[in-house]
Amino acid sequence: MTATPPIPDETTLARLRRASTPSIATLLHRRGLRNQYIQGVHRLGDQPRMVGPAFTLRYIPAREDLDVVEAFRDPTHPQRVAVETAPEGHVLVMDCRRDASAASLGSILFTRLEVRGCAGVVTDGGVRDAEPIASMATPCFAASPCAPTNLSKHHAVDINVPIGCGGAPVYPGDVIVGDGDGVMVIPAHLAAEIAEEAAGMEAFEDFVLEEVRAGRSVIGTYPPNAETLERFEAFKRGEYAPGQVFQKRVPA
Amino acid sequence: MTATPPIPDETTLARLRRASTPSIATLLHRRGLRNQYIQGVHRLGDQPRMVGPAFTLRYIPAREDLDVVEAFRDPTHPQRVAVETAPEGHVLVMDCRRDASAASLGSILFTRLEVRGCAGVVTDGGVRDAEPIASMATPCFAASPCAPTNLSKHHAVDINVPIGCGGAPVYPGDVIVGDGDGVMVIPAHLAAEIAEEAAGMEAFEDFVLEEVRAGRSVIGTYPPNAETLERFEAFKRGEYAPGQVFQKRVPA
Amino acid sequence: MTATPPIPDETTLARLRRASTPSIATLLHRRGLRNQYIQGVHRLGDQPRMVGPAFTLRYIPAREDLDVVEAFRDPTHPQRVAVETAPEGHVLVMDCRRDASAASLGSILFTRLEVRGCAGVVTDGGVRDAEPIASMATPCFAASPCAPTNLSKHHAVDINVPIGCGGAPVYPGDVIVGDGDGVMVIPAHLAAEIAEEAAGMEAFEDFVLEEVRAGRSVIGTYPPNAETLERFEAFKRGEYAPGQVFQKRVPA
Amino acid sequence: MTATPPIPDETTLARLRRASTPSIATLLHRRGLRNQYIQGVHRLGDQPRMVGPAFTLRYIPAREDLDVVEAFRDPTHPQRVAVETAPEGHVLVMDCRRDASAASLGSILFTRLEVRGCAGVVTDGGVRDAEPIASMATPCFAASPCAPTNLSKHHAVDINVPIGCGGAPVYPGDVIVGDGDGVMVIPAHLAAEIAEEAAGMEAFEDFVLEEVRAGRSVIGTYPPNAETLERFEAFKRGEYAPGQVFQKRVPA
Amino acid sequence: MTATPPIPDETTLARLRRASTPSIATLLHRRGLRNQYIQGVHRLGDQPRMVGPAFTLRYIPAREDLDVVEAFRDPTHPQRVAVETAPEGHVLVMDCRRDASAASLGSILFTRLEVRGCAGVVTDGGVRDAEPIASMATPCFAASPCAPTNLSKHHAVDINVPIGCGGAPVYPGDVIVGDGDGVMVIPAHLAAEIAEEAAGMEAFEDFVLEEVRAGRSVIGTYPPNAETLERFEAFKRGEYAPGQVFQKRVPA
Amino acid sequence: MTATPPIPDETTLARLRRASTPSIATLLHRRGLRNQYIQGVHRLGDQPRMVGPAFTLRYIPAREDLDVVEAFRDPTHPQRVAVETAPEGHVLVMDCRRDASAASLGSILFTRLEVRGCAGVVTDGGVRDAEPIASMATPCFAASPCAPTNLSKHHAVDINVPIGCGGAPVYPGDVIVGDGDGVMVIPAHLAAEIAEEAAGMEAFEDFVLEEVRAGRSVIGTYPPNAETLERFEAFKRGEYAPGQVFQKRVPA
Repeated sequence: MTATPPIPDETTLARLRRASTPSIATLLHRRGLRNQYIQGVHRLGDQPRMVGPAFTLRYIPAREDLDVVEAFRDPTHPQRVAVETAPEGHVLVMDCRRDASAASLGSILFTRLEVRGCAGVVTDGGVRDAEPIASMATPCFAASPCAPTNLSKHHAVDINVPIGCGGAPVYPGDVIVGDGDGVMVIPAHLAAEIAEEAAGMEAFEDFVLEEVRAGRSVIGTYPPNAETLERFEAFKRGEYAPGQVFQKRVPA
Repeated sequence: MTATPPIPDETTLARLRRASTPSIATLLHRRGLRNQYIQGVHRLGDQPRMVGPAFTLRYIPAREDLDVVEAFRDPTHPQRVAVETAPEGHVLVMDCRRDASAASLGSILFTRLEVRGCAGVVTDGGVRDAEPIASMATPCFAASPCAPTNLSKHHAVDINVPIGCGGAPVYPGDVIVGDGDGVMVIPAHLAAEIAEEAAGMEAFEDFVLEEVRAGRSVIGTYPPNAETLERFEAFKRGEYAPGQVFQKRVPA
Repeated sequence: MTATPPIPDETTLARLRRASTPSIATLLHRRGLRNQYIQGVHRLGDQPRMVGPAFTLRYIPAREDLDVVEAFRDPTHPQRVAVETAPEGHVLVMDCRRDASAASLGSILFTRLEVRGCAGVVTDGGVRDAEPIASMATPCFAASPCAPTNLSKHHAVDINVPIGCGGAPVYPGDVIVGDGDGVMVIPAHLAAEIAEEAAGMEAFEDFVLEEVRAGRSVIGTYPPNAETLERFEAFKRGEYAPGQVFQKRVPA
Repeated sequence: MTATPPIPDETTLARLRRASTPSIATLLHRRGLRNQYIQGVHRLGDQPRMVGPAFTLRYIPAREDLDVVEAFRDPTHPQRVAVETAPEGHVLVMDCRRDASAASLGSILFTRLEVRGCAGVVTDGGVRDAEPIASMATPCFAASPCAPTNLSKHHAVDINVPIGCGGAPVYPGDVIVGDGDGVMVIPAHLAAEIAEEAAGMEAFEDFVLEEVRAGRSVIGTYPPNAETLERFEAFKRGEYAPGQVFQKRVPA
Repeated sequence: MTATPPIPDETTLARLRRASTPSIATLLHRRGLRNQYIQGVHRLGDQPRMVGPAFTLRYIPAREDLDVVEAFRDPTHPQRVAVETAPEGHVLVMDCRRDASAASLGSILFTRLEVRGCAGVVTDGGVRDAEPIASMATPCFAASPCAPTNLSKHHAVDINVPIGCGGAPVYPGDVIVGDGDGVMVIPAHLAAEIAEEAAGMEAFEDFVLEEVRAGRSVIGTYPPNAETLERFEAFKRGEYAPGQVFQKRVPA
Repeated sequence: MTATPPIPDETTLARLRRASTPSIATLLHRRGLRNQYIQGVHRLGDQPRMVGPAFTLRYIPAREDLDVVEAFRDPTHPQRVAVETAPEGHVLVMDCRRDASAASLGSILFTRLEVRGCAGVVTDGGVRDAEPIASMATPCFAASPCAPTNLSKHHAVDINVPIGCGGAPVYPGDVIVGDGDGVMVIPAHLAAEIAEEAAGMEAFEDFVLEEVRAGRSVIGTYPPNAETLERFEAFKRGEYAPGQVFQKRVPA
């Protein structure tokens, strides 16, 4: 197990709680990172945005003589240990090799994670007890509900090592953000700057959306030409509202 | 870009707004057309039935040196042009090669399409900002919500050419119908006759459903034998209601 | 067609109506049965748990000259016969070779099954009229909503023979249980004992969930060590509630 | 088990031994049959064309308590019975639900089929001992070599019933033809006429190939216009050879 | 149809005929192009390396009323026109949407392409008559042999437009290189520089291979440290052979 | 990195070099191990059977800022270190998450492994330079040839930890056996007993094959009844040859 890196500062986390995953995807794309989206998972309920550093758990395929119900009696079983040691505010991210034919965990372990202050769970495998989990306060992203125990397909083997999840690389401490469009993985060293840029981006996109609702063409507006940028500056100063005639400010 | 064919007449469109996609699928099957269903897409919200002629946009796989964020500054970028030129009442259908690992569009472009009077959107790729889009009045059918920008996987290349979407052929001007069972593609030259037949078919199936609720066997009823057809005629004349004893009309 | 085996006794059925599919999966796993989950299907609505013996229908790929709309006029067409003969309280399970590109049935046949007292429907193909079906009282599990008629891909060929459904073996008379986590297949000869064990398991897991909510670690609790078992016994006697300090009973 | 239909007459079989699977596919396509190709299987060795009526074996997913090595001690085990009863000259076609993760059979059963005069084997599952089988005289078409016993995934359940194989419908007695391009299924009632037409088609395509080698454009040649047909008639009379100047015969 | 760009100069083509596809992949990767490999196709025979500019053909899904055998009688049918107009020395690249369940072409069209001097064929669909094609002098890369006519799944629609093939973007005039490891797509503007660098890369890798055969560790050798580069320079001057003791040249 | 377990004794290795992977699969199946076959890989050449303990390398998905060509200059890069430290006689098994769209290694690293005495290579990803590798003496099993560098998809992260490969669990030191039917993974503690049983099994199956060639039915022979076992004993004593009339030995 690698040492867990420090949690990003509260400003960064707060900004990311207001940032959509599409904005983050675009900002990472600008830096040449095109593969930081966890493919094939969705949120089970309608909780608010999930934000937190990754704490990882790696599974390999099960072997019938090792993966018996009695295995959980071992107090060092990595799945149980992960559930008891994932730090508060972290997101537990599990590598199930994109195999959703068996669960990663169920409502008892999920409840324990919630009680311990975990910020959320992501798995590219299945989740059992999906309906009770969907109704809880903590967000859970999974490939699918399913009934079979993880033992039937998955053998927990490593805690907090770099993993793949839904085709994306996840390093312990990477900042995980999840919402209705899925889950993005922000490399730890980029979290603060992505968070900062995302704030401005969201403000601009809210403005553009109002402009478009008021009848603007997207061409020249999104991405903006010089005049659109002027309108946006005027809007921020309270001198312009979308739909109004825009009077360019003439220097005195 | 091929010339956009004329919109079907209002009678046809109105009839199709009352026709379910299963009825349309059966009527096309009767004509030997077994592959007009767009596989793997579903409606994001619970809007009413979507009906309109197809306006198409074709994507090929992205190339890293071409598909950069700056590409959208080009006012002739096909995706932006499609959003600004898709005619009122049309459905924008996008060929993303069934790859939902990146979005086709997000809420800003979708809002512009709604403002411009577009009848709906279909893509066999992903859609970002899926939650706000699901809550809008215009229906959107996609393979999946997802966060990544279309640039990471999709390069818009052609407007209003014949495309494949979800494994079905879509020619510009084909009439697109979408509901809770997905999306059907009606070849343009068949739209009027399918619309007309569908009206009768829906009426008959509503009657059969009442008969079955009242205890009829499906055998002899669906498809109908001669007596069922007589009951249906009597029902239309107001002389019979499902569940009643049926008194065959004896010619005077 | 094999003779339909007798329905399990009412005690067993009643117990299974209180048993979750994850509990059943774990109990079957303990017996070395790791493949009794029907992969890739989900419940269309939010009906209560589905329980009943399997009545099966097998489809093979369609052939264009045989699978024409007129085929349904044959009163011995296996799909129609299955709908009219599936015994009350049984679950109709259909083998569509995991191909959801065409429907297995629609709302008329589904309504007939409901009227006839069928306990539910499972198909690893598609279902058309998915929205009306989702709003009915009888549960329906399918791979996906879809519009095309079964004739376009599926040819009904056999009634009540052993089949595969979603990758699991299903023998006529196996007991089918479905809920929000999907569908389990209990071999007929194990139904009574699984039902009995599940009752105890659910009670224990409810207790554990309360313990975890009250702050217990899962290690030592789930699976239980000796002390946890003592607390559980005390809990059943009304002498302990989760969250309380546990006073081990000292023999007088 | 359905009665095995009579073997096609020797003329038909002989003609089909000279007919390529692409020609047969085209002739079936002309009759509206677009799905008679067994997808995803290939010939393990380089034996000559395989022709014979289908004798079928159906597998469902294995169940761990039933599919144990001892199961083969049962002299009525359907796989063993199929191997001992498939009639001489027939092709054993197996439905393994397109799951090649376990074998359908290995070299001992395959050798028994060869000794008994079987015309070949087709499976959409795997085959073990693929190298020795590839070197035998009887052709074997499979999805893949693989090592696991059929018991680990496949349970033999029915002999000589209609099945799906590689996505195509196969009825007992359908005529199976296999070569380097894979396997076609000819519905029994069409075998004689397809065989007859194929003979003419092959002769014409051989002629066209010579014409193209000699420099002809495919346009006007394939499919043929009137002049090409005249050249072909002249060729058959020995009055023209591809590459020569063609002198149209003038009626005396 | 876009105008076909000029063929790369003969020096570039000659260099690429000596360059392996892995070397080209690495050189493109260095430029940030990670997706120029056509996934899922392989060479049918063992012809030498294929090199030439891309001439493209785009297919969409077939529609039963349009894609009948008679369609080929139309002298403007895009597939036939492509075969008659693909320029000498070009590679015909076909977009079949990665659907290998039907052929793109067979031996007659392939022979015509060979007679016309085509440098090769690539399709992400199937190819019929695969055995005769494999034995010809012109290389053919396809997803799979198969028997069905292209009409059953593919409708040829566009000539020489940008396409996707095997998940890679292909623009007309891009330089296509194929060998035993598959097919790479070199953007036209990079062909000359990639060709030049590849020559040096191949020479160095041949040297490294000899060093490794003679017992060198890959660490320090591949990629090379300063000493390895010195050995390589000495090797090129004929002053060192792999396996010899290396005497560093001391400046006089 | 876990310590590499001791190599199995030479008797075990020698026996396994005569054991087919199907026999090993059956023997593991008898012990309840149904998932020890590495799915989806095949041998590139026609080398003899591969046998050796597993030395593992784990990859996760690549990240564009980390997985640049310069990464290989790091002498501690896990892929390079694995190639330099895999012990003589071991099989290098690589977990590429069943993603064959990029290579695991090419001919230079493979040659180094051969020089160092490695017993073979298995990867569930691709391999570049597949043709030269196929012609070498050391066996290589891969999902597919391919051109792209591992950097484009795979990031080497861990050496000699438990991994999944082709869906099977592989623990360092497990004994790997590969032949024309693919690759089996024997848990280390079972290697000796499997090797011993396999020897007897192969001898019996050779005998059965001769019996079947000589006309025996498989029923009663495979699996054997009492008389077949007597014939086998007589055969081993040289008192019976397949095809002869069997004279049961009467006790004196």
